[in-house]
Amino acid sequence: MLGKIPSLNKLILELGRIPGIGPKSAQRMAYHLMRSPLSQVEGLRESLKAIKLNVKECPTCFAFVEGQTLCEVCDDIHRREDLLCIVEDPSDIDSIESSGAFKGRYHVLHGTISPLDGIQPEDLKIPALLHRLDDPDSKVKEVVLALDADLEGDTTVLYLAKLLKQRGISAYRIAHGVPIGGDIDYIDHRTLGRAIENKVQV
Amino acid sequence: MLGKIPSLNKLILELGRIPGIGPKSAQRMAYHLMRSPLSQVEGLRESLKAIKLNVKECPTCFAFVEGQTLCEVCDDIHRREDLLCIVEDPSDIDSIESSGAFKGRYHVLHGTISPLDGIQPEDLKIPALLHRLDDPDSKVKEVVLALDADLEGDTTVLYLAKLLKQRGISAYRIAHGVPIGGDIDYIDHRTLGRAIENKVQV
Repeated sequence: MLGKIPSLNKLILELGRIPGIGPKSAQRMAYHLMRSPLSQVEGLRESLKAIKLNVKECPTCFAFVEGQTLCEVCDDIHRREDLLCIVEDPSDIDSIESSGAFKGRYHVLHGTISPLDGIQPEDLKIPALLHRLDDPDSKVKEVVLALDADLEGDTTVLYLAKLLKQRGISAYRIAHGVPIGGDIDYIDHRTLGRAIENKVQV
Repeated sequence: MLGKIPSLNKLILELGRIPGIGPKSAQRMAYHLMRSPLSQVEGLRESLKAIKLNVKECPTCFAFVEGQTLCEVCDDIHRREDLLCIVEDPSDIDSIESSGAFKGRYHVLHGTISPLDGIQPEDLKIPALLHRLDDPDSKVKEVVLALDADLEGDTTVLYLAKLLKQRGISAYRIAHGVPIGGDIDYIDHRTLGRAIENKVQV
């Protein structure tokens, strides 16, 4: 039956191309949209148009911006210029900002190095990062790598640490360990191993 | 930061309204779409328009159709008119058709009764089903309920069984049990319980 409904099939295929959406999820989503009021589907279509039309990347840090050129952080003269935090996604900036623990500037990579997925440094904002650091006006002295503790995050940290060292910039990685309020009994052994490795003197 | 990007926020909200898409998935999807080529996002927008414009429901069984009035099954004069299979979703028809075990007609409910979610019989194609069965030309003598074995499926089966009985129509439910090739050791106890309850004499 579905073979005879090309429009629905095409939508299922296109939704299935989004990472994390399997063929079954794509089908369920398409069915839901089929049954939704026209106004709701039109709203979604308008939003898809709007993000492509209105949302841009900050030319300095590559966070998303709308209706302005520089992002809030890059535009704030009170932020420290010697500290730079490197993140994978623009949403990571929100998380770090809400912790209140970082007062420097950011740089969004828009992904991590993943040879298995064919993602090389030049597919990310790494050339732009080096250009930013090599600028004679750059005041960056210390970089914090706030990347996930997975294979891709580790690869990216190793790659960037070498490049930062060559430039005489101190490179740090955020600490991975037992979360505050986390129960040691329930933590996975890799996290616990990392927490013991990175023990802090009291 | 995200608070300052209304277009992206709106898309995340709208994607999050689709059942099964949580706020984190919606955000990941929106970021992916932000980074996708314009042509891909335009393709998705066109598909969303196309399903609303081109895909209709078969007026008899409520399966989805495109470019024709009746669906394939309803249009096929060789299918048995005394057998009716009731399914939740149009995709269930594909699954049952590929089993080759059913030669009658279908009726799609487009959901199951779920008082917790506020889904009542009249929100589904149940009034249309009764109208179909009460038609003086109806030849339906036997109904197979091919609904999931969850709370909503069970509720719907009980509700429909009563209405079918009142009309002197035999009502069956598909068997739930251990899948062919399934290992009894690995099957959940509810399925195994059902398989023992519904044992078949050999």
